[in-house]
Amino acid sequence: MAKQPTHVDTDDLSRRITRAPFPGSRKVYIDGAQSGVRVPFREIALTDTLVHEGPGEPRREPNPPLRVYDASGPYTDPDARIDITRGLLGLRTAWIDARGDTEVLPGLTSAYGRERLDDPALSALRMAASPVLRRAKPGANVSQMHYARRGIVTPEMEFVAVRENLLKAQLRERLLTERLPKRGHGFGATMLQDITPEFVRSEVARGRAVIPCNVNHPESEPMAIGRNFLVKVNANIGNSAVTSGIEEEVDKLVWAIRWGADTVMDLSTGDNIHETREWILRNSPVPIGTVPLYQALEKVHGKAEELSWPLFRDTLIEQAEQGVDYFTIHAGVRLAYVPLTANRLTGIVSRGGSIMAKWCLAHHRESFLYEHFDEICEIMKAYDVCYSLGDGLRPGSIADANDEAQFAELHTLGELTQVAWKHDVQVMIEGPGHVPLQLVKENVDKQLEACFEAPFYTLGPLITDISPGYDHISSAMGAANIGWYGTAMLCYVTPKEHLGLPNRDDVKQGLIAYKIAAHAADLAKGFAGAQMWDNAVSKARFEFRWEDQFRLAIDPDTAMAYHDETLPKENAKVAHFCSMCGPKFCSMKISQEVREFARLNPAVKPDALPVVEVHRALGEKAVEFRERGSEIYL
Amino acid sequence: MAKQPTHVDTDDLSRRITRAPFPGSRKVYIDGAQSGVRVPFREIALTDTLVHEGPGEPRREPNPPLRVYDASGPYTDPDARIDITRGLLGLRTAWIDARGDTEVLPGLTSAYGRERLDDPALSALRMAASPVLRRAKPGANVSQMHYARRGIVTPEMEFVAVRENLLKAQLRERLLTERLPKRGHGFGATMLQDITPEFVRSEVARGRAVIPCNVNHPESEPMAIGRNFLVKVNANIGNSAVTSGIEEEVDKLVWAIRWGADTVMDLSTGDNIHETREWILRNSPVPIGTVPLYQALEKVHGKAEELSWPLFRDTLIEQAEQGVDYFTIHAGVRLAYVPLTANRLTGIVSRGGSIMAKWCLAHHRESFLYEHFDEICEIMKAYDVCYSLGDGLRPGSIADANDEAQFAELHTLGELTQVAWKHDVQVMIEGPGHVPLQLVKENVDKQLEACFEAPFYTLGPLITDISPGYDHISSAMGAANIGWYGTAMLCYVTPKEHLGLPNRDDVKQGLIAYKIAAHAADLAKGFAGAQMWDNAVSKARFEFRWEDQFRLAIDPDTAMAYHDETLPKENAKVAHFCSMCGPKFCSMKISQEVREFARLNPAVKPDALPVVEVHRALGEKAVEFRERGSEIYL
Repeated sequence: MAKQPTHVDTDDLSRRITRAPFPGSRKVYIDGAQSGVRVPFREIALTDTLVHEGPGEPRREPNPPLRVYDASGPYTDPDARIDITRGLLGLRTAWIDARGDTEVLPGLTSAYGRERLDDPALSALRMAASPVLRRAKPGANVSQMHYARRGIVTPEMEFVAVRENLLKAQLRERLLTERLPKRGHGFGATMLQDITPEFVRSEVARGRAVIPCNVNHPESEPMAIGRNFLVKVNANIGNSAVTSGIEEEVDKLVWAIRWGADTVMDLSTGDNIHETREWILRNSPVPIGTVPLYQALEKVHGKAEELSWPLFRDTLIEQAEQGVDYFTIHAGVRLAYVPLTANRLTGIVSRGGSIMAKWCLAHHRESFLYEHFDEICEIMKAYDVCYSLGDGLRPGSIADANDEAQFAELHTLGELTQVAWKHDVQVMIEGPGHVPLQLVKENVDKQLEACFEAPFYTLGPLITDISPGYDHISSAMGAANIGWYGTAMLCYVTPKEHLGLPNRDDVKQGLIAYKIAAHAADLAKGFAGAQMWDNAVSKARFEFRWEDQFRLAIDPDTAMAYHDETLPKENAKVAHFCSMCGPKFCSMKISQEVREFARLNPAVKPDALPVVEVHRALGEKAVEFRERGSEIYL
Repeated sequence: MAKQPTHVDTDDLSRRITRAPFPGSRKVYIDGAQSGVRVPFREIALTDTLVHEGPGEPRREPNPPLRVYDASGPYTDPDARIDITRGLLGLRTAWIDARGDTEVLPGLTSAYGRERLDDPALSALRMAASPVLRRAKPGANVSQMHYARRGIVTPEMEFVAVRENLLKAQLRERLLTERLPKRGHGFGATMLQDITPEFVRSEVARGRAVIPCNVNHPESEPMAIGRNFLVKVNANIGNSAVTSGIEEEVDKLVWAIRWGADTVMDLSTGDNIHETREWILRNSPVPIGTVPLYQALEKVHGKAEELSWPLFRDTLIEQAEQGVDYFTIHAGVRLAYVPLTANRLTGIVSRGGSIMAKWCLAHHRESFLYEHFDEICEIMKAYDVCYSLGDGLRPGSIADANDEAQFAELHTLGELTQVAWKHDVQVMIEGPGHVPLQLVKENVDKQLEACFEAPFYTLGPLITDISPGYDHISSAMGAANIGWYGTAMLCYVTPKEHLGLPNRDDVKQGLIAYKIAAHAADLAKGFAGAQMWDNAVSKARFEFRWEDQFRLAIDPDTAMAYHDETLPKENAKVAHFCSMCGPKFCSMKISQEVREFARLNPAVKPDALPVVEVHRALGEKAVEFRERGSEIYL
């Protein structure tokens, strides 16, 4: 085992954190109607299109900047002052205050939290500032679902509406010149052109979306997870007993949100996870999720059979008071389901699932998580912690996919969803895992039905088991499909899955693969605004605006580095070809020459157009084109 | 432009070539009934499972070796003697001879081929040996389709049958202990348990599969491309005028087949492409495809309008006599379709398509490829070159997907398929490109109908445009789906797509992503035998047989390197955990403990099992399990 650290090297931490803005990009904010609703976007500046119409200087056509969804928080805003040792500013503090339904606590109420705080040996691991501690006033329920069901549009909901509305975030000029998006196929998802605060409220009230935002995590920028919003991506970080310290994990947090993590789960095990979590929460602008069972198991020195409800309850309160926004709770692993895994190829592969199975068998009784579920709800609503009901019996191999153990647990998760909703507590449902392509959709269909459309949150799924070292790819393939079918959030997988703890680069590789999957799902569902990004890349590509193509890429650094590997000279950045095909064989260049040739040779006219099937979405443009049939290219 | 090389450094070439067998693997051959049919497989040896049943030495259960499809040729057989300067042995020479329908030519019949041969300045670029040159006897047709339609099962067809039959390739013990494969969904594909030579013949006769095998490429190991066989992957190699020489390209060929390329396209442009191709063909155990138009364009110094039928015809003969197995022919780019691309976001992105569009417009006449299609067929059947009808108007962006230009061309490709089939010439159809997820299936559906189930061969498709630098991933996502829907061969995309010429590592990265896609498609279609590989990986994983997991991985080197990054010690290879979760949190370990606990505590019994839905494929096992209900784990 690695030696556990005894202090945090804040100089080292500050050096690690990446704070550079993205190339050619700036942070812009769009205000909402409610006070303090100021929603960040990344605005990518683009260069002009040069139109060559004969000899002399080309005409310049401006390309409006593109605004994209931005989960990177203040770190990419050069104007933001950030002190890692004190944490981010509390964006939501005033909103929470104004609701008047929380009370400020004099101190931590969990036994373990107090014990850690009272241990002077840990002072070198603690941050410089302590946050204000809040809890719902007695009898109050501070969940976003509770507000939504009473018809209240909170600032959090308005923030989400502005954030999701990529169409509105674009300038008017872009809208007027935009290529029509492809007709989507959303399998029943509701694709609004214009996402309103009221729509967000109705989705949260209905339980079809969640906004994970603990009152003790006011630093977070509200975001929604739901089938009728953009598909989100979660990144898992956290040390294990074998490797990694607090500095690495905070750095991974900032790095993960730079590459698009919409939420981050801190899955730390080993010592000091209370303190590690505090550093992560105070510096995180995205919701943080945890699996409290991991810490509970540490408290009983890894002996699952020694877990108990009082110990677990204290852990929930400890973490809720730190500000964790969602808890994975494996309450669906019931005693009777454990034998269903007996003839599996890979048994139980969820850590939480295997811990609970061991507890159930050892005590030969029903899971304490299942039996105390109502009491857990009481804690959740006192802080607004969202459930992420864990799929402890998810399949760990193609052979075990969609089996009876998995679906038995899913039905229990649906039952528990209804219990949580009776408490107005937000819920999402975790899903697999390892599933071959042809069985992926069944997971979504069954989940939507069994869990009443509560947001689905899946790990991949990997669509084959043969790819250790490349499981980010095989799982992102499954993720693109399951996102398209209706999964609301995709939990990433890194190249190290099944092999070791991911490092910084693994985190990035996992995120890029999953952001591609999520964006592809958005496109496929027909989200208005999603295709604008693709169009901007493709237009830049066709016009040889290399710098624009790099800065529009999902990873500008890599795109530029790959291009420069073979054509590093500055003038190659304006060249009308790249090294892949060379100058004579660049189809884009020839295609432009075709247009230019037609322009200079107006006498060249094609025969009458054949009657061909016209794609519906392009119908109008095709008609318009035929009407001006005598000109090949305008 | 880079300086073109004047000689081949054979020492350098021999040093580059990778000839090591895969870890823990050996080449095995299975004989067919016909003489010389000796089909290679890679056999992966596995260690024993250790069953701990109490104190003392564990009981050992052997795991039978796994045999997997192997396109890597003699390079991974340490017993094979290979001289790169003379090329591989002619596996098929005796079969071609025995058919008696070819004549040996006294020399090259193409004007360009003779011109190159007569140029003494090129002697340092030539190989040490010249192959025997063959052509069909006058009036004969030497295509596999022609034989198939006359009811002849050729050795090539039998070779394919043995090769595709992964079930039969496995040992009897494995079959008896194997986990049932998941029920597939093949969208109408025929999934045989037992693939017979007669089935291969009938598929080739019907045009639903092709076996690209030019009589002048006897070095190739026959393989089939068709919807009712394993999904194949093509890798593009070839230098451009900007970079790379013959040594690099031959090395890329061997490297590409090592990582699973089923066919390789040589897309070289620039000088010396005749000689480069000769080196590639003579050393290739997989079919080689080309786009003859590229070389034709070089011959007219890049001026598309100077292309002509006689020049193109000479190029076809030149390449057919070298042994190219399939030609991409862009005969579907008709004059009337060019204007349909006018309002596209990215115009024409196929090199061949843009060249032909430019020619058509410049001459204001129908494409010479379309007009001379019958004559091209005459050449194809004289050498058995297979058509790969190019999709010159494929979409180059999400905005242009599934548009009228694309589908107009597809219908022409269907018309040309029927013409080729009248000549008993083999045909496959190329497909896109850039297509959002929800429009991918329409491509397969329309292709199957328009082209009468001729094998579909698609480039990706990329399911978003925003991923330059990671287009191997976004396109492999599309490829997994389109392979599942019925595409027979997937043309890989490397990380350098849109940015530059791929290097050796890019070739590998592209191939791994695509082999994952192809295998996932095989699994999803329900190919008997595909899931055996997944099961072997998962069983090794569950039993902590780390070395077995590495050698079974799609890329053993990377899997082991990633594991060793955090736990490099030798004893970690037998550890029952990895650095991802550490020892206390390994679910697989806990899951095994659960089984062990149950074994040691037979008094612990679960409640009566709940009535849950039982997945059909597991039905029998589930019934069997219920019958022994009083034992949790056997």
